[in-house]
Amino acid sequence: MITGPQITLAHGGGGTMMQDFLHDVVLPRLHNPALDDLADAAVLACPHGGELAFTTDSFVVQPLFFPGGDIGHLAVCGTVNDLAVMGAKPAALSLACILESGVPMDVVARVMDSVKASAADAGVPVVTGDTKVVEKGQADQMYLTTSGVGWRLPHAPAGWRSVQKGDAVMVSGSIGHHGVAVLAARAALPFTTPLSSDCAPLNGIVGLLLEAEREVRWMRDPTRGGLAAALNELAVQAGVGIELDAAAVPLADDVKGAAEMLGLDPLYLANEGRFVVVCPASRADKAIAVLRSHPLGRGAARIGTVTGPMPRGRVVMNTGFGGTRIVDMPSGEQLPRIC
Amino acid sequence: MITGPQITLAHGGGGTMMQDFLHDVVLPRLHNPALDDLADAAVLACPHGGELAFTTDSFVVQPLFFPGGDIGHLAVCGTVNDLAVMGAKPAALSLACILESGVPMDVVARVMDSVKASAADAGVPVVTGDTKVVEKGQADQMYLTTSGVGWRLPHAPAGWRSVQKGDAVMVSGSIGHHGVAVLAARAALPFTTPLSSDCAPLNGIVGLLLEAEREVRWMRDPTRGGLAAALNELAVQAGVGIELDAAAVPLADDVKGAAEMLGLDPLYLANEGRFVVVCPASRADKAIAVLRSHPLGRGAARIGTVTGPMPRGRVVMNTGFGGTRIVDMPSGEQLPRIC
Repeated sequence: MITGPQITLAHGGGGTMMQDFLHDVVLPRLHNPALDDLADAAVLACPHGGELAFTTDSFVVQPLFFPGGDIGHLAVCGTVNDLAVMGAKPAALSLACILESGVPMDVVARVMDSVKASAADAGVPVVTGDTKVVEKGQADQMYLTTSGVGWRLPHAPAGWRSVQKGDAVMVSGSIGHHGVAVLAARAALPFTTPLSSDCAPLNGIVGLLLEAEREVRWMRDPTRGGLAAALNELAVQAGVGIELDAAAVPLADDVKGAAEMLGLDPLYLANEGRFVVVCPASRADKAIAVLRSHPLGRGAARIGTVTGPMPRGRVVMNTGFGGTRIVDMPSGEQLPRIC
Repeated sequence: MITGPQITLAHGGGGTMMQDFLHDVVLPRLHNPALDDLADAAVLACPHGGELAFTTDSFVVQPLFFPGGDIGHLAVCGTVNDLAVMGAKPAALSLACILESGVPMDVVARVMDSVKASAADAGVPVVTGDTKVVEKGQADQMYLTTSGVGWRLPHAPAGWRSVQKGDAVMVSGSIGHHGVAVLAARAALPFTTPLSSDCAPLNGIVGLLLEAEREVRWMRDPTRGGLAAALNELAVQAGVGIELDAAAVPLADDVKGAAEMLGLDPLYLANEGRFVVVCPASRADKAIAVLRSHPLGRGAARIGTVTGPMPRGRVVMNTGFGGTRIVDMPSGEQLPRIC
């Protein structure tokens, strides 16, 4: 075991520390083909045909409310998005609440309002749930856990095993909004224009893409650990190199400015309403056009290329001055409790 | 809103306070046919035929380890059992962990050992999961949330709508073991013989029963709030009276003694390896025989009868001395954080 004698915040950060924890502590005990893939959702065959996607996430974001969202909105979108990027049409959500004794009822009600609005926006009902209450001081107001089930679409991506040299790498919009919005809210930073999270349900735009383009190979929503973690996971699993073009990565001025001020790299900032798409290079222009036709994909861009076999995987970025930089897997999260 | 200005421990107790919270705060916002039933699991139609059951529960039990189980065993069994009593064959589980920074890695490893053993015992794999870490002092070591999906069996019970006057009420074994075991562990009570939780996966015995007996009308695992809460929920939903025979309710001597010493009523103690069954009276003897043929049903007994329409529901118990007592819905839980 190389994960150390105690749990640390970095074990929940979506980086190498979490990967080590999963590979050292969890997978040796619970391994099975579905779990071992560490995908955004597990895929199960249904008895009468078709496939079920099944996913879960806990949400411990702090503060509960931030520009562009709150823990309820995040919990619904996070789970809807994990189903969507696995090529599934979300069918239903569960919601388990761990509430702290003493939390004001109107805070709970506001979060439930948000769950309602987000579930309606995504078109996915919350069909089952649970409520537990712990003593004051034991849950930082509230933690939510959403799980989701969905039916895999006929043209769901085949996943990392299908990724090939020459494939195009795209992102559906500018990155880092969620990470800087939560951090700004937490620190009460005085930005002149409020930074807003990108948190949104992606099932609509993903459905549009998969209907129009049947050769999407792989998708992921780059949450904890950001674009860097998502692409490194793909590179390691598929055993490929990925080359990014720094100038092509969409980045809003306000996010760029805030990240610079805070000393954070946007590639590692969490996103909650963006997704990465890999498809054959010959289909990239069409895929970008489809993405841009949807309100959540206006900023879609091709950002790089799969460069070929690389047994341990590697992500590099052309900096635009003839240089390249290795984009490593983060070890922990720059910002704990971002989701 | 009658639930008060703040969340209290009683809102998580499985009694009237939790019911009020659900009816005042949650259901007005999220209502849909599946959720409104407040069943142990939601039932969804699969696109290619058959039905999916889907359930979730968070676990915040304290202490994490107790005689007869631990939080990992409880999380697996609790979710497997919610699927089983809905007449579904559990297919897969998810496991979301909220860990506190500083919790020893070997505590996490022991819990994962237990998840592994329980999942193997139930024959249900953990196929997807999530790990979040919060700061020291924010999660009392760990909280787990399990969700589960299962395929409904051909002879799944029709549920509370099918319950009729004259139906027999049965329980699969002696009650209250989990509640007293956790309380004894928490208080380090010096009982001469250790009280052990009944925590166990019920999918095997439920499957056996449903295969042998096609007229089971309703099942539930009486967890938080115990037998009293489970039967009151049925009585209210179905609009019936239920008459229990005090002498027939199976109660082990050690649980009885501990409950008397602690001033607790066994009818309200949580169970994690028992289930209540309602079927036509004419089928009761056979159902009891089937239950007793399984190791987890050795102590099965018929404990009462559905007595007919009662618009607001009511559960009464014949005390055996010619008297009767009303078995009310509890308001909160006698013991917070029992599961």
